[in-house]
Amino acid sequence: MELGSTPADRPRPVGRGPKMHAAVLAATVAELAEGGYAALTVERVAQRAGVHKTTVYRRWKDRAALVVDALAEHIATDIPMPDTGSIGGDLREMARSLVGWLVSPTGRAVEAALISDAVRLPEIAEARARIFGDRFRRAEPVVARAVARGELPVGTDPSAVVSALAAPIHFRLLVSGGPLDDTVAEQAARITLAAARAGVLDTPARVAGPVDKG
Amino acid sequence: MELGSTPADRPRPVGRGPKMHAAVLAATVAELAEGGYAALTVERVAQRAGVHKTTVYRRWKDRAALVVDALAEHIATDIPMPDTGSIGGDLREMARSLVGWLVSPTGRAVEAALISDAVRLPEIAEARARIFGDRFRRAEPVVARAVARGELPVGTDPSAVVSALAAPIHFRLLVSGGPLDDTVAEQAARITLAAARAGVLDTPARVAGPVDKG
Repeated sequence: MELGSTPADRPRPVGRGPKMHAAVLAATVAELAEGGYAALTVERVAQRAGVHKTTVYRRWKDRAALVVDALAEHIATDIPMPDTGSIGGDLREMARSLVGWLVSPTGRAVEAALISDAVRLPEIAEARARIFGDRFRRAEPVVARAVARGELPVGTDPSAVVSALAAPIHFRLLVSGGPLDDTVAEQAARITLAAARAGVLDTPARVAGPVDKG
Repeated sequence: MELGSTPADRPRPVGRGPKMHAAVLAATVAELAEGGYAALTVERVAQRAGVHKTTVYRRWKDRAALVVDALAEHIATDIPMPDTGSIGGDLREMARSLVGWLVSPTGRAVEAALISDAVRLPEIAEARARIFGDRFRRAEPVVARAVARGELPVGTDPSAVVSALAAPIHFRLLVSGGPLDDTVAEQAARITLAAARAGVLDTPARVAGPVDKG
């Protein structure tokens, strides 16, 4: 089979339920990675997933709802939360996972779509808010364990930790340029650990939702 | 006079030397802010500055050289380095200046031009490397004074300090969204101070130049 053949040439029936759900979300991420948000249609996603578009519309009211779900699901799966036994190790793992995702073809494409469209589209802002909300919530046990071990002060905020960790990595990627590698991840982890230990990561991070353009 | 009249309608002679130099650089920033790098031409800059384009070409070999100079000059002027007497105060002032610049119309436009075009154009990467080089160099006295006062460990690297300070602010602007205000500046200063005191800002920050795409 030719690699270049379009998804429309070969619809694969995926049935109903969780399998269909996963196939549609995966197809959405693939479409987003290929053409960005502007080019994404429910029709194309349905073709790629091998389902009828009415099946998609039955579960998601529009492409925005689909994209929000797909990105949240994709990032939750691709950036797992570690449990290394120390907050230093956990932060390093989290930073490395983020770098690994950002340099992957899908990560690059999804990030580009999120960043470039974010300013204009409320649904992209919603996806972003949902993704960060998920990341923040998933970091809670990491921070709770560190506090319980006495490594971090009581009152350390998981969302502030995640933001502090992600900031130097995105700064390298989007602003200063230079290699996106383990050195950046390591430095992000060191900065975040120092800040958390000093008790300055005590205030919840703010993320713009669809109605809050900042 | 109509606000909408084009710069071409009213060329103002600016003479030669430093005055011409400043007028051309200011016109370059204004053109960049209006239309981005893609739309910028030496002709339009010359018209706006009220000089002949041969005058511009005599000093700058092409629009890339012009943009590199203009941005470096503009940012050096608009984001001054403070001397408040303490590193905490200096970091807070630097963070506030950066936020103030990023929310200004020119800052927004220039930043958008730098970020969006940065991936593709080597001359933009050069401008970026030059701007960061300037910022890093200008932060040297701030860090040197803090080390001399015993506030920061010997070996604290000014470029690492500037990067750590700028990262949370750009993260808010470009990734997480939400208000870009004094609260963000304050939090960036606190994180940077904690990291610098802990001795983790000891490694020079890397910035991609025109031949280093990272």
